[in-house]
Amino acid sequence: MKFTINRSKFIKYLTDVQRAISSRTTIPVLTGVKITIDKDGLMLSGSDSDISIEIYIPVADESNQLEVIEEGGIVLPAKIFNEIVRKMSDETITIEVGENLQTSITSAKAAFNINSIDVESYPNFPVIDSNEVITLPTTLFKQVIQHTVIATSTQESRPILTGVNITIENGQLKAVATDSHRLSQRIIPIEVPESLKENSYKIIIPGKSLIELSKIVENQDTIEMMVTQNQVLFRAENLYFYSRLLEGYYPDTNRLIPANDSTKLTINANDLLQATDRASLLSHEGKNNVIKLTLTDDHVELSGNSPEIGTVEEALNYIEATGDPLVISFNPDYLKDALRTFGHQNVVIGFTAPIRPFTVVPADDNSDIAQSFIQLITPVRTY
Amino acid sequence: MKFTINRSKFIKYLTDVQRAISSRTTIPVLTGVKITIDKDGLMLSGSDSDISIEIYIPVADESNQLEVIEEGGIVLPAKIFNEIVRKMSDETITIEVGENLQTSITSAKAAFNINSIDVESYPNFPVIDSNEVITLPTTLFKQVIQHTVIATSTQESRPILTGVNITIENGQLKAVATDSHRLSQRIIPIEVPESLKENSYKIIIPGKSLIELSKIVENQDTIEMMVTQNQVLFRAENLYFYSRLLEGYYPDTNRLIPANDSTKLTINANDLLQATDRASLLSHEGKNNVIKLTLTDDHVELSGNSPEIGTVEEALNYIEATGDPLVISFNPDYLKDALRTFGHQNVVIGFTAPIRPFTVVPADDNSDIAQSFIQLITPVRTY
Repeated sequence: MKFTINRSKFIKYLTDVQRAISSRTTIPVLTGVKITIDKDGLMLSGSDSDISIEIYIPVADESNQLEVIEEGGIVLPAKIFNEIVRKMSDETITIEVGENLQTSITSAKAAFNINSIDVESYPNFPVIDSNEVITLPTTLFKQVIQHTVIATSTQESRPILTGVNITIENGQLKAVATDSHRLSQRIIPIEVPESLKENSYKIIIPGKSLIELSKIVENQDTIEMMVTQNQVLFRAENLYFYSRLLEGYYPDTNRLIPANDSTKLTINANDLLQATDRASLLSHEGKNNVIKLTLTDDHVELSGNSPEIGTVEEALNYIEATGDPLVISFNPDYLKDALRTFGHQNVVIGFTAPIRPFTVVPADDNSDIAQSFIQLITPVRTY
Repeated sequence: MKFTINRSKFIKYLTDVQRAISSRTTIPVLTGVKITIDKDGLMLSGSDSDISIEIYIPVADESNQLEVIEEGGIVLPAKIFNEIVRKMSDETITIEVGENLQTSITSAKAAFNINSIDVESYPNFPVIDSNEVITLPTTLFKQVIQHTVIATSTQESRPILTGVNITIENGQLKAVATDSHRLSQRIIPIEVPESLKENSYKIIIPGKSLIELSKIVENQDTIEMMVTQNQVLFRAENLYFYSRLLEGYYPDTNRLIPANDSTKLTINANDLLQATDRASLLSHEGKNNVIKLTLTDDHVELSGNSPEIGTVEEALNYIEATGDPLVISFNPDYLKDALRTFGHQNVVIGFTAPIRPFTVVPADDNSDIAQSFIQLITPVRTY
């Protein structure tokens, strides 16, 4: 195997593949990056067995300056190989596998010779030969990921809650995540080919996989999704992103979303985020990370305290408050996470009772899909 | 005590004072920032008992928007106070000490009330009533710090070596640091008033203090230095920076600097830095962090290896190599630190023997002070 490639393009591709490679794996070969090459192009592969990433670098794309001198394959230690490529100085770099699985990496006058692993010992990736290709709008799908992964659980005590529950049916994609203290739900319309109109898909994708996917995928028009028994493959131009699926029963979340609100607060999401951030300064210092929101007829106030440090109170600037007076306490970090997903939009916060979950939805939601975007937070009982 | 001040200016001053404040101190009051105020201005003080910083904010400087409503003083918990000031939203902020040592911090509609400490319980800073003021050129002195602190020891086994040894006499300031594996020396000319011409100062300032000083001091023209028995005070506009001095005997370093070289290599510091960085990639992976430089009649080569990973070799681009052939091994990190102090200058590396220290000096040193800037590195015996 021997080839020459543009160094800065190669650094970018290597960095992307490295997202799937962990140095803490128990399978030594998976600390490596696999390179295979034929006359048409080069494939980089990396995997931590939860996520696998493949990136194809075609000769036809001239910006890659890819010149294939000899076909073949090798597995190189990913971390040090990446550092070597980064620290070289020339515009291009040449990689050649020599005798005894020694790979030379040369650029300008510097020459590395590193111990490599036979490409045959690298595990095969799942073969997903699915005719059922679902096409997703990339930008919108990345937004769905950002809006929902915040509510996934990070604790392994209930592994199923570390995933995002995705349901595709009736021309809609619905994504839900909950860690049992809060919930995030987003529904988007998608185009499904006529042949799949009758099908429905219910899969639970690990939140960590979705975060990595949204970091790596470029903002091209669409991304293709293919589902098998226990794997999902996302395919974008020259990128293949595999993730395992979580197996098990995802709780029914529809019944958690309250039907009516007795109190409604319309407010700018960013204004409330800033005020919540200030109130949480003191709640973070105390034992109970809780702040209090008080709504009266003509006044809305946020307050927090820490016995050691002191207190904070802030009258909120809001747009409209209607319904019953209310005092409610909650974890400010959940509200901050939820508010960040709305940016500088105005939101409506709907309350039922001090001990019932409250919801945050966009104030100017023009979508015709009911409950297209909703964040739900469970309050804390403080008495 | 009550005053209003421009919030962004106040954040900057607080951040500077906070450099002296540690949350790990055993003296609780020192986790606080001291604020004292009279009709002319406000003084911020912080200390970890090694370093003390005072910053004066005059009413006369209108950009501070400092309005003194009531004179007085207080000590506030530094970390949380800093965070509160940062997270406020208005252009100005108002701070007022109320009853029971409760301090209110208000900006826009947000109001904090935090528990504070009586200003009387804050320890006094050393009184340095010295008529002996030495004026240092700020930019040049900051350079002296940067060039020498790299060679200070970080190990407390020989505390004296954690400092920079500064000698002022005969119109020169000489700074030397060594951790016994390498040495850095810089000499600059300074102007000493006629009355102090006969005096000489020999002090050892902790490297950590000098690093903080160089971060905080602005690039104004000059900085004043005053020395007492066990303290040094640096004074710049509105800034008072105190550091304790290290007590003890600093080893005689003059005899360590070789008088003649038998081999000389002239090379661009940055080119050699990049090559050393590449060679160190593999030496860092091995047990012995050592790389090898080989000079022959017509060839200069840097090489490194790690039994697990592989080898690296690089022919260097150099300007001139004269004298005896040589093979020498050394810790690449010491050379990298030394080379960084030269930026993109050309340097001359002078060798005496494979087991004797080698020196790095600027190639185009026009200063008339002998040995004005020298980095020295002890090689590693590899046989």
